Amino acid sequence: MQGPAPDIDVLVSEVGPRDGLQSIDRIMPLEAKKAWIRAEAAAGVREIEVGSFVPAKVLPQLADTAEVVAFAKTIPRLDVAVLVPNLRGAEAAIAAGADKLTLPLSVSETHSLRNVRRTHAQMIEEARAIAELVRSQPADQRPKFEGSLSTAFGCTIEGPIPDATLLRLAEQLMAAGCDEVGLSDTTGYANPADVKRLIRLVRAAVGDEALSGIHLHNTRGLGLANALAALEMGLTTFDSSLGGIGGCPFAPGASGNIVTEDLVFMLDAMGLRTGIDLEALLKVRELVAKALEGEPLYGFTPDAGIPLGHKPAAARTRKSEAA
Amino acid sequence: MQGPAPDIDVLVSEVGPRDGLQSIDRIMPLEAKKAWIRAEAAAGVREIEVGSFVPAKVLPQLADTAEVVAFAKTIPRLDVAVLVPNLRGAEAAIAAGADKLTLPLSVSETHSLRNVRRTHAQMIEEARAIAELVRSQPADQRPKFEGSLSTAFGCTIEGPIPDATLLRLAEQLMAAGCDEVGLSDTTGYANPADVKRLIRLVRAAVGDEALSGIHLHNTRGLGLANALAALEMGLTTFDSSLGGIGGCPFAPGASGNIVTEDLVFMLDAMGLRTGIDLEALLKVRELVAKALEGEPLYGFTPDAGIPLGHKPAAARTRKSEAA
Repeated sequence: MQGPAPDIDVLVSEVGPRDGLQSIDRIMPLEAKKAWIRAEAAAGVREIEVGSFVPAKVLPQLADTAEVVAFAKTIPRLDVAVLVPNLRGAEAAIAAGADKLTLPLSVSETHSLRNVRRTHAQMIEEARAIAELVRSQPADQRPKFEGSLSTAFGCTIEGPIPDATLLRLAEQLMAAGCDEVGLSDTTGYANPADVKRLIRLVRAAVGDEALSGIHLHNTRGLGLANALAALEMGLTTFDSSLGGIGGCPFAPGASGNIVTEDLVFMLDAMGLRTGIDLEALLKVRELVAKALEGEPLYGFTPDAGIPLGHKPAAARTRKSEAA
Repeated sequence: MQGPAPDIDVLVSEVGPRDGLQSIDRIMPLEAKKAWIRAEAAAGVREIEVGSFVPAKVLPQLADTAEVVAFAKTIPRLDVAVLVPNLRGAEAAIAAGADKLTLPLSVSETHSLRNVRRTHAQMIEEARAIAELVRSQPADQRPKFEGSLSTAFGCTIEGPIPDATLLRLAEQLMAAGCDEVGLSDTTGYANPADVKRLIRLVRAAVGDEALSGIHLHNTRGLGLANALAALEMGLTTFDSSLGGIGGCPFAPGASGNIVTEDLVFMLDAMGLRTGIDLEALLKVRELVAKALEGEPLYGFTPDAGIPLGHKPAAARTRKSEAA
């Protein structure tokens, strides 16, 4: 496990341009995506999942992913992540120059079959092929390859998934050649006890280095509590979405991804360095709100504002280092 | 510290009829309050703060508190809590038969002066007078008396409050004769690190038995993360409000109290027994929504629904006991 860069404690990975935009009907113009990514990187965000290499007819919102990657790659210090559903997607991602490839594998086989029409065995085969491709790249251009265990905390079709299934798939993904696995609460079913339990189990199965990240939803309001639980277990990479956009699969008001603004406020208030300037981040929200006028944005900190006397983590650290 | 009854792990103390209704302009009719309290107690809630003994001209919404207490006292197994701002309020609360009296003391003296026009010294004197009155009651009718340290995590006027001020006031409240102190994040400034830190400090100052409860807001979306932090520190009593009503002091959408439904879902999902039937609780929400038609209700679990295959904590426990 590499972990976050030495000057930060936690890596906040923005997934809005991928996970957010794919859930919204309208297509954000390329220029607006560029402005968003540029502004969020300028606010200090170090990793952004900018798109997904899926057929344009499936997700026309992300049809310009190659161009978005090419643009994002021009931004210094930004890791450019993309989602790839299969080997073909991985080929396109590597051609575009992405820094990180994530293959989602649904722990619920029913969900996997309905979603991508593939069995677990077929998905593991895909992971193996992608890993081989990744390893065939020159060392200095080799992207990171993560297998994301989606519906890890339960499935809306199957309900709870047996731990044994999750652990077997985590092991198979690592054996197939993934650099890491990630836990993903696709359905918003997670709770802090299960977050801790599954992190412990997965790490026992595949090693501490093989699990550093988690993708949480706020569907039932537990998103940040679950993030805290993961943080306490030593995880260091947290997906989140600006304005919580993306994934309102159940009901209006039941937001999907955890909200980047609230997550960053929590981490910052706890004295953990994210490298992100919270005030600048709140301005990015305004920019995205304008580009997506009429779409609901979520989050509490943007409405309530930063508390009086709030000391950013970076400032606190400097102070304590001086003391 | 008595802690929760032996058949539950965590006491969820509903504050909606007091903290919620005092923040809403309209006056809920007495019969609607009774229906709410009756239904929520029937869903398994063991403690409800039903009102506040303040002058009717200050809070006309709570002018019928004595009648509400008298009604609530007829419900078996329900502890009836009230807020009292001073000795006169405590006299009325004891005459009405309340089981628990809470005196709020603002750790920010500026806030205390603006809110109740009293200095810290004057409030401690009030606490002493109330404690004397409480102790003069026959043992079997003596209510519990808590001093609530409000704005404990920071004040919108003063900003952060020095730890020393908080600890001095906690000690003075206990010395004045309170049975317990509570921490209250009146302003929604708390974060999980500060929650743990202040619990540790206050307990070191006044003893573990003297701090079992916390009152959290969800103003910046961290409410349940803060609750988790407090839970991990061993706190066992959590205030919350059905539908999160009450206290939107900053902005629309920035809800006040943590939402009872989401809190109970979190605890239940974690396998902690609250004694509360989550499905029945969600029905109480519908009843309150009808009584407060047009008022915004908050919370995620009610919109998203209970996850497929969710096992209530009580059922889990029976299963594990049988194993």
